[in-house]
Amino acid sequence: MSEETKHIALVCPGGPISRDLANKTSEIAAASFGERAQLHFHPQCFVEAGHFAGSDAERSAAFLEVANDPKYDAVWFARGGYGACRLDDGLFTKLNATAHEKTYLGYSDAGMILARLYQGGIGKPVHGPMPTDLARPGGEQAIARALDFLVTGGAETLEATAKSGGKTVAFNITVLSHLIAADWAPDLSGHIVLLEDVSEYLYSIDRAMFAILSSPKLRHAAGVKLGRISDIPENDRPFGQSEEEIVAYWCARAGVAYLGRADIGHDADNKVVPFGANQPS
Amino acid sequence: MSEETKHIALVCPGGPISRDLANKTSEIAAASFGERAQLHFHPQCFVEAGHFAGSDAERSAAFLEVANDPKYDAVWFARGGYGACRLDDGLFTKLNATAHEKTYLGYSDAGMILARLYQGGIGKPVHGPMPTDLARPGGEQAIARALDFLVTGGAETLEATAKSGGKTVAFNITVLSHLIAADWAPDLSGHIVLLEDVSEYLYSIDRAMFAILSSPKLRHAAGVKLGRISDIPENDRPFGQSEEEIVAYWCARAGVAYLGRADIGHDADNKVVPFGANQPS
Repeated sequence: MSEETKHIALVCPGGPISRDLANKTSEIAAASFGERAQLHFHPQCFVEAGHFAGSDAERSAAFLEVANDPKYDAVWFARGGYGACRLDDGLFTKLNATAHEKTYLGYSDAGMILARLYQGGIGKPVHGPMPTDLARPGGEQAIARALDFLVTGGAETLEATAKSGGKTVAFNITVLSHLIAADWAPDLSGHIVLLEDVSEYLYSIDRAMFAILSSPKLRHAAGVKLGRISDIPENDRPFGQSEEEIVAYWCARAGVAYLGRADIGHDADNKVVPFGANQPS
Repeated sequence: MSEETKHIALVCPGGPISRDLANKTSEIAAASFGERAQLHFHPQCFVEAGHFAGSDAERSAAFLEVANDPKYDAVWFARGGYGACRLDDGLFTKLNATAHEKTYLGYSDAGMILARLYQGGIGKPVHGPMPTDLARPGGEQAIARALDFLVTGGAETLEATAKSGGKTVAFNITVLSHLIAADWAPDLSGHIVLLEDVSEYLYSIDRAMFAILSSPKLRHAAGVKLGRISDIPENDRPFGQSEEEIVAYWCARAGVAYLGRADIGHDADNKVVPFGANQPS
């Protein structure tokens, strides 16, 4: 376990966070890791512009600044929400050698950026908890897990699939379906694809799974695992299949292996999934 | 104006309809067109299986049966809802010479089928009202318009863009974003693309427009026109842009012309948009 100090920059590519949330996150970091975890909240995190944490230009500039700054070891997305796909499309070509070495941690809407980074072979994209998870029941555990990963790389923070020795990615289902349509999604041949979602009707999950598993991007995937789908709204008529039946159905139609459940989701138990090939534990 | 009788078969690729709705639609047809409009509701329209008008196999078989039957001049989708993307993927290769000559009319979820037909050069896919629109205020007008198109091909039923002499398609925004991801969408180069939606948050519309306009399928589109986005739910914070600003924003980013408003939507005014090249009026 390394004892060096990790400098972690936080930005908000979608919605903003409060200073109170930033302070609480810093307190958890200090209590668990002392000097070894230094959190640097970019002022952009607290800007409010309509739905977003600042204009598209402000959010793009903040991300580019911290990604390219050699004083930070990692970029931690402080919140999802919506807006990462609105960042300047050209910024991914402006990421420097430093940015190509960094870890990028987040999930949900931030998966838009993780996908672009992974598609471009830039840095280490990682699916895992964000400060905004503090608002969830048991949220402190999620934050502590993310910090543990960022500071020590602790194997106990990882989702089991990410210790299997195979290539792994994790995405929000709705985000991935849009990434694929936008041609922002990496080729997932040979990958185990972990999926999760929140607050979507089962028919929306079904439609997104149709899109994802009909796509050439998944045609040669090693398999799909389903994380948790939480807060599913009740529809005017029951869908007639569970979320697991839906995912297994579309996997079977596509000839892609359904490999069971994954330990990710919009909740405190959300484990860490580094993208790409991983070492068996 | 042709005086021959048109035989119109109705099926439900997504959700079911009631016999009452079928009867009312037939009454409108009889009152307006007498013997010239013969509606044939397939029994599958009334089957209920969970969310759907029968199992995927039942819905697929009913569609294939009426499409391939030479006694019908047109297939009219009686309702959208959700489920057209679950039809047997292989059925589009089983459509016979008769099916290749027919008109197919519907919209919303039925756009999944219109896209596949258009991609395959099969028949005449047309975006327009369905019997289920009877439940909307002024719905009888919508049904009468669709019948007028099917029986007489009346030019006054058409959306203005469909009389411009250019190539035109029309889609529900959410459906099109999923079609593109699934690689079911036709190449829309040279087309004016008319878009509409219902009951989606503005951030969902924005995300879908990101996906649609980032896609290679739209890269060489002749332009985009926005129909109506109705019943937009209120979000916890205002999005900060109108639906027209959203569409114009993504068009500008993609370098695709935004050409203004279109007269389509989930409402009684929904005009008819035949896919493909049209004759200037």
